[in-house]
Amino acid sequence: MKEVMAIIRMDMISKTKEALLKADFPALTCLKVMGRGKQKVDFSLVENLINGHEIGSPVLAEAISEGQRLIPKRLLSIVVQDEDVEKLVETIISVNQKGHPGDGKIFVMPVVDTIKVRTEEYGEAAL
Amino acid sequence: MKEVMAIIRMDMISKTKEALLKADFPALTCLKVMGRGKQKVDFSLVENLINGHEIGSPVLAEAISEGQRLIPKRLLSIVVQDEDVEKLVETIISVNQKGHPGDGKIFVMPVVDTIKVRTEEYGEAAL
Amino acid sequence: MKEVMAIIRMDMISKTKEALLKADFPALTCLKVMGRGKQKVDFSLVENLINGHEIGSPVLAEAISEGQRLIPKRLLSIVVQDEDVEKLVETIISVNQKGHPGDGKIFVMPVVDTIKVRTEEYGEAAL
Repeated sequence: MKEVMAIIRMDMISKTKEALLKADFPALTCLKVMGRGKQKVDFSLVENLINGHEIGSPVLAEAISEGQRLIPKRLLSIVVQDEDVEKLVETIISVNQKGHPGDGKIFVMPVVDTIKVRTEEYGEAAL
Repeated sequence: MKEVMAIIRMDMISKTKEALLKADFPALTCLKVMGRGKQKVDFSLVENLINGHEIGSPVLAEAISEGQRLIPKRLLSIVVQDEDVEKLVETIISVNQKGHPGDGKIFVMPVVDTIKVRTEEYGEAAL
Repeated sequence: MKEVMAIIRMDMISKTKEALLKADFPALTCLKVMGRGKQKVDFSLVENLINGHEIGSPVLAEAISEGQRLIPKRLLSIVVQDEDVEKLVETIISVNQKGHPGDGKIFVMPVVDTIKVRTEEYGEAAL
């Protein structure tokens, strides 16, 4: 069993939720977080973005500020069986990959057990 | 060492905190999250709930909406020694089990180490 | 790969972010959480604090209330390679260790894999 934790753009949450439901991953937990990636301000990227985006666009603002301050993000947590991790990761990537810094990160963490409070079921039955 | 992560109803946090303190689990971290379970809207359940609950009750509203949108929940995280996981899980279930969808989920995750910032103690001494 | 999860004082977040950047840990995720430690109210500590702090100081208020209610905290999550865990933990301790209850806790959790959404890089390349 694994927890797939994705940190994605704030405005991608609805599309991601929809895609997850369609891919048969209805259960999820969502959190508001603030995040910072590892890149410094990349002015050639900023210049390219200015050419392709209106001044004031969120993608441009993010490219400029990513190196310095925290940006509001959404964290999605989904616990699945090991054999579903690949499909889940691909589903998240398919919706969130725009080719710009800030597209997001996905972390896969081990889960020892899951328990459903209502039925006291353990393991896969509780997912 | 394990992290026990419970996702429970918003209005169950005080009773759960109280029960955890009595069961000798004082230390905890609590987060606001939004969550969605895996069930679709179950109209037979909704009908049963209408018979037992006032229109407008939170339990009824949750049964209707659970399949479609995210519901505010609380996430509790408690890190304990392996031998305390069972008692901790039972304590959380005893307070939160109402027999309705949305009662909650508990995830048990491995923890490699814990460090207390004040004393620089590691491992069980830091819990 | 490990997730280093630190629960620190609300007002220590800027200094900690700055120290992490200097120590070459730019990427991080930050969450608002509420937390409670394990200590009961310790009146000898409160007395000592009264001698050293103005009535109304946050440190004093925290020492008095820590046993009973939840205190707003910040949770920092940073995923790094195994060989960087020690330096990261030391960096967090160096900024946050004041010698008072509430200085914080650090948890180290295993991470199976990391994926960068933009490039679909896996593992260390995705950090």
